[in-house]
Amino acid sequence: MKAEIIAVGTEILLGDILNTNAQYLALQLAELGIDVHYQTVVGDNPQRLENTIFHAFSRANIIITTGGLGPTEDDLTKETGAKYFEEELVLDERALKRMESYFYKTGRTMTENNRKQAFVPKNGKVLYNDNGTAPGIIIEKNNKILIMLPGPPKETVPMFEQQVKPYLAQKQEYTFISRVLRIAGVGESIMETMVKDLIDSQTNPTIAPYAKDSESILRITAKAKSEQEAEKMIAPVAEEIYRRFGHDVYGEGETNMQTVVAELLIQKQKTIATAESCTGGAIASALVEYPGISSVFLDGCVTYSNASKQKRLDVKAETLQKYGAVSPETAKEMAEGAAKTAGTHIGLATTGIAGPDGGTEQKPVGLVYIGLTIDGVTQTKECHFVGNREKIRTRAVYTALDWLRRELLK
Amino acid sequence: MKAEIIAVGTEILLGDILNTNAQYLALQLAELGIDVHYQTVVGDNPQRLENTIFHAFSRANIIITTGGLGPTEDDLTKETGAKYFEEELVLDERALKRMESYFYKTGRTMTENNRKQAFVPKNGKVLYNDNGTAPGIIIEKNNKILIMLPGPPKETVPMFEQQVKPYLAQKQEYTFISRVLRIAGVGESIMETMVKDLIDSQTNPTIAPYAKDSESILRITAKAKSEQEAEKMIAPVAEEIYRRFGHDVYGEGETNMQTVVAELLIQKQKTIATAESCTGGAIASALVEYPGISSVFLDGCVTYSNASKQKRLDVKAETLQKYGAVSPETAKEMAEGAAKTAGTHIGLATTGIAGPDGGTEQKPVGLVYIGLTIDGVTQTKECHFVGNREKIRTRAVYTALDWLRRELLK
Repeated sequence: MKAEIIAVGTEILLGDILNTNAQYLALQLAELGIDVHYQTVVGDNPQRLENTIFHAFSRANIIITTGGLGPTEDDLTKETGAKYFEEELVLDERALKRMESYFYKTGRTMTENNRKQAFVPKNGKVLYNDNGTAPGIIIEKNNKILIMLPGPPKETVPMFEQQVKPYLAQKQEYTFISRVLRIAGVGESIMETMVKDLIDSQTNPTIAPYAKDSESILRITAKAKSEQEAEKMIAPVAEEIYRRFGHDVYGEGETNMQTVVAELLIQKQKTIATAESCTGGAIASALVEYPGISSVFLDGCVTYSNASKQKRLDVKAETLQKYGAVSPETAKEMAEGAAKTAGTHIGLATTGIAGPDGGTEQKPVGLVYIGLTIDGVTQTKECHFVGNREKIRTRAVYTALDWLRRELLK
Repeated sequence: MKAEIIAVGTEILLGDILNTNAQYLALQLAELGIDVHYQTVVGDNPQRLENTIFHAFSRANIIITTGGLGPTEDDLTKETGAKYFEEELVLDERALKRMESYFYKTGRTMTENNRKQAFVPKNGKVLYNDNGTAPGIIIEKNNKILIMLPGPPKETVPMFEQQVKPYLAQKQEYTFISRVLRIAGVGESIMETMVKDLIDSQTNPTIAPYAKDSESILRITAKAKSEQEAEKMIAPVAEEIYRRFGHDVYGEGETNMQTVVAELLIQKQKTIATAESCTGGAIASALVEYPGISSVFLDGCVTYSNASKQKRLDVKAETLQKYGAVSPETAKEMAEGAAKTAGTHIGLATTGIAGPDGGTEQKPVGLVYIGLTIDGVTQTKECHFVGNREKIRTRAVYTALDWLRRELLK
């Protein structure tokens, strides 16, 4: 099956909104094993919208549109779709009732215009909308399928997930299941080299490597007749990757480093305090994203000045003078000071030069020391990060959390 | 002039990459006053790429492509463009030299493949690339213009900005100049109401309101024969908006709240310490984004536990017991304690319930108290934020910084 994705809306065409729906739908269709050949964006212009839909159907048998289902006169996707299939629009009582109740719940007044949204093509399948007013519609006729979804991603995504995906999956003989392994501390090209033989020798499951921010990702995708069968095919490949990468694989699927670390801290009941200089509170802030972190995260210090390092963390004046604020000695005392003054098992500290100024030949921009003390044992790590101020800070946060994770797993 | 934007690349078509170039180019073309009628995404498929470019030229006279200029056999944008204009590809010595020096500088080895990138259409204008290996190309012939840009945004954006924009501006009789006013503390719909008469009565300059994250934005755009003339037309409108919104307008153009606050602190030479509970270090981290902040930002505490509020900030046990950690009394003592223990002019504190758990009827999720002390005078503010944990924390950071900004302006 060949598909095309069409976004309808002047606000996307003119760049006021980023077309995230197209990316979402493209990924979903790939997972279902449906080929996408084109994506198009067209404005709320009747003739150009009609040309786009008719032209797309000359090349593809599935078209998914987003947007243009609203209550105004500009919203013409449904009318154009109905025209292509020579369908008339009729009032759907259930859609109208749902819309009335949606307006009532959100305390807004329904206008006469909104009634337009409850009109649907006579032989269309109505996709009721739990997150907005416009129902979606599927029309299937003469071996062509038109799936019209509303534009706001908070409506598009759940409607696709719950109603369109099962519909399309059922048309596909095969299902495509993916498992995503997240790898820390290994660059993309090294990761690729480490699994090149697996990538080259496999066609089902496939292994796709990619990089995102500070991490490398491996996506294993199997094509099978059932979800269960696909998972069974993926298992030995995932196992082999775990064997090769060990604790470099820090998590699977929709997660991130701070979540994994927060979960480990809570599971091991280890309390933590942070002491940050160059990261400026970003490690604390990342951990605090996790609801329930308060049982283990007790205290953080952003000791930006030397005076504050001495006062808050008992870093010795002598250490600062002799080795400087950016030194393993200071990182060590910061970590120990954080744990001691807060009375926690763990102290995690950063001190470095995020730039763009402040670097010297001995201590260049990008130099960051991490201090980590766990139950009285302290270590320090020297890192050299490349990039601008934001990148250096982000990588320092990631690296500090990743190091803590590895130590917690020991 | 009618334009179309075409992104070439299977990685965008399949959703592995978000098509941010299309949004960027659409906004740029709108500013130049060039109409965009369609955006298309097509994969690295020779026939479909050719169909797309030829079809687009049947409707438009300017086409901008991104991607497909790489060294591999899959990269065919240049070849297809040359075919449309019946141009042969010839080696551009300067492009080759620049490429060789780029490889040398980045310490990589240039392969034979890369030479392909230095071949350009005979009558094309070469856009040399400072940020990558592929030069861009403009072909202008028979009243049609094809502008081919590389795919990675870090190459596309500067190339457009520096080389394509002046080229297109020169074709336009009129220039379009915008001024963006950023407004804090006023919701989008109230803002719209406050300027509705201006929007309705003006066609040049136009006023476009929109909302982004916690702020509201007004974009004033004038069409004129020169930049100077456009700016002169915008000035009285901007003045009127400043008159209506006063200090609600916190900045103009490419800036953000933390930058404006950091600049004000430095300008007024006021030192600051932060004391954060629910925001968990995010205020400190936002301020630390600003290079040079170390002259005024001395210290931050993330006092997540009650013990840490007492120890770090001298919050009284009695206060915590009597009013609770989330109370104006605690916020006040946190702000004062931060300033006092760090020896700063300013103390800024947050304490609240970010959820999803921990809310009660008296103190629901979203309740946040902000404490602010400046030169010995302390105030507190009660806020009720709506949304998930992330949203509540983000809005608390924004509101705290905005409040500090307003007080610094007094």
